Amino acid sequence: MISDLWLVGIGTGNPDHLTMEGARALREADRILVPRKGPGKDDLAAIRHRIIESAGSQAEIVHFDYPVRDPSLPYQDRVARWHDEIAHRWSKALEGASGPVALLVWGDPSLYDSTLRIAERLDPQPHTRVFPGITSLQALTAAHAIPLNTINGPIHILTGRNLRDHGWPKDATTVAVMLDGEASFQHLAPQGLTIWWGAFLGMPEQVLQAGPLAVASDQIIKARQAARTRHGWLMDTYLLRRE
Amino acid sequence: MISDLWLVGIGTGNPDHLTMEGARALREADRILVPRKGPGKDDLAAIRHRIIESAGSQAEIVHFDYPVRDPSLPYQDRVARWHDEIAHRWSKALEGASGPVALLVWGDPSLYDSTLRIAERLDPQPHTRVFPGITSLQALTAAHAIPLNTINGPIHILTGRNLRDHGWPKDATTVAVMLDGEASFQHLAPQGLTIWWGAFLGMPEQVLQAGPLAVASDQIIKARQAARTRHGWLMDTYLLRRE
Repeated sequence: MISDLWLVGIGTGNPDHLTMEGARALREADRILVPRKGPGKDDLAAIRHRIIESAGSQAEIVHFDYPVRDPSLPYQDRVARWHDEIAHRWSKALEGASGPVALLVWGDPSLYDSTLRIAERLDPQPHTRVFPGITSLQALTAAHAIPLNTINGPIHILTGRNLRDHGWPKDATTVAVMLDGEASFQHLAPQGLTIWWGAFLGMPEQVLQAGPLAVASDQIIKARQAARTRHGWLMDTYLLRRE
Repeated sequence: MISDLWLVGIGTGNPDHLTMEGARALREADRILVPRKGPGKDDLAAIRHRIIESAGSQAEIVHFDYPVRDPSLPYQDRVARWHDEIAHRWSKALEGASGPVALLVWGDPSLYDSTLRIAERLDPQPHTRVFPGITSLQALTAAHAIPLNTINGPIHILTGRNLRDHGWPKDATTVAVMLDGEASFQHLAPQGLTIWWGAFLGMPEQVLQAGPLAVASDQIIKARQAARTRHGWLMDTYLLRRE
C-alpha cells in the first residue's frame, strides 16, 4: 500500500490559485486520483485536468467513480456510509502505486471538505500531508475587495443547512455561508443586513452581486437561475454583515 | 498618482505559499512597497525580500517606515489615526510610480489585516485588486492535518482580545483564535476542550502542540516562551474544539 497521501488544495477553479508548493506536489506525485462525478460535472473534471497540466505534472492519472448516497439513511449515517464507500474506491485506485499519491481538493482540504475524513478510513493508514489552498470565501472577499471581518470583530462561518435550521447566529456581525444550494439568505429578515455574493469565483464565468439584502436578494436569485441555466451547475458563496 | 494597487496575500512566511497569480502580480508590478517595522523585525523583512526574489520580480522596491500608535487614544481612534498616518506614508512612497504598485500582505488581505482599510484612505482612490493568500489558520490545520469544522458544524473565528473580553462563544463547537499575543486560552475553563496550536506555521521554525487543553495549556506556554527567546518574536494561532 502507499505510504504518502498528499491532499492538495487547488483553489476555486482558477489554475492560478494553485500555490508553489501545491504545484510542486502535483509534479512530484507518482499518481493523481481524479474523481468522475457523473453527468453535468464535465466542467469540473476539465478544470482538474487543466490544473494538473498547468503545474507541469507527468503523474499517472487514475480515475474513480463517486458512489451514490443512500437517501433512506439519516444524515450522519448517510455521510459516514458514503465516506466508507469512497475510501474503498480510493484503496482500489491506490493499488500498485510506488510513490506519493495526490488528490486535488477544491478550495482548502480543511474547510467543509470530506477528503481528510475519508483518508482517515484507509487501512493501513498512509502518511497524510495537507497543502492549503484558496477557499471560495477568500475568492469572494478578494473579488469584492472587502475585509472578511470588522475591526477586531468575530466571524461566523456556517453552512446553508445551519442557517436554515438555526437562523442568524446570536450576537453575530459577520456571517459567511458555504455549501448552500438553496439561497438560504431568503429565510432571514433582511433589515440591517448587507450581502456580498459570488458564483464561479475566480473563474472567467465569475458573477458578483452586493448590496442591502432587502434589495439584492431578488437580484441574486435571478443571477443564480441564469447561471445555472447557462452552465448546468452552480457553485456560490456569500457574506452577510449586520450594520 | 497610481491607478492600480495590488494587495498580494503571501501566506505565512513560506515562499512556497505564494499562488501562481500572486507571483505573477509581483513580476508585473512596477513598484513594490515594503515596510520597515523597526528593530527585532528583520526576519520579517528578510522573508518579504526572499518572496519577491523567489517570484522572479524585477520591480523597484520602495521602503517606508511604520508609524507608532498613540497609546493615549481610545482603541478605535488609535487604530483610525494610525491607518491615516500609514496611508499618508504610502502616498509618499507611491509618488512617481508609472505602473501597478504591489504590497505584500501576510496571510490573506481579507482576514484580520488592515491593508484594505488603509487603501480606502488614499486620495485619489486607486483601483485596488486583491490576490488571496494562505492564512495562518489554513497553515495550522494543514500542519496538524485536521479539518477546521466538524461535519456541517459552524466555525467561530475571533481575536485573542475578543476571547478575553467575552469568553467562549455561546453554542460554539469550533473556535479559531488569531491575533492573540497573550495566550488567552488560559482564561477558559479547560474541561471538554481540545487545542491545536502552532507557531511559525509553514516555516522551518514551525512548532506544533495539540491535546486536551487541561494538559496542553502549560506545554504551549512553555513552547511560546522558548520560541520567543530563540527568535525575539513569535506569531502563533490556535484552534479549540468542544467535544
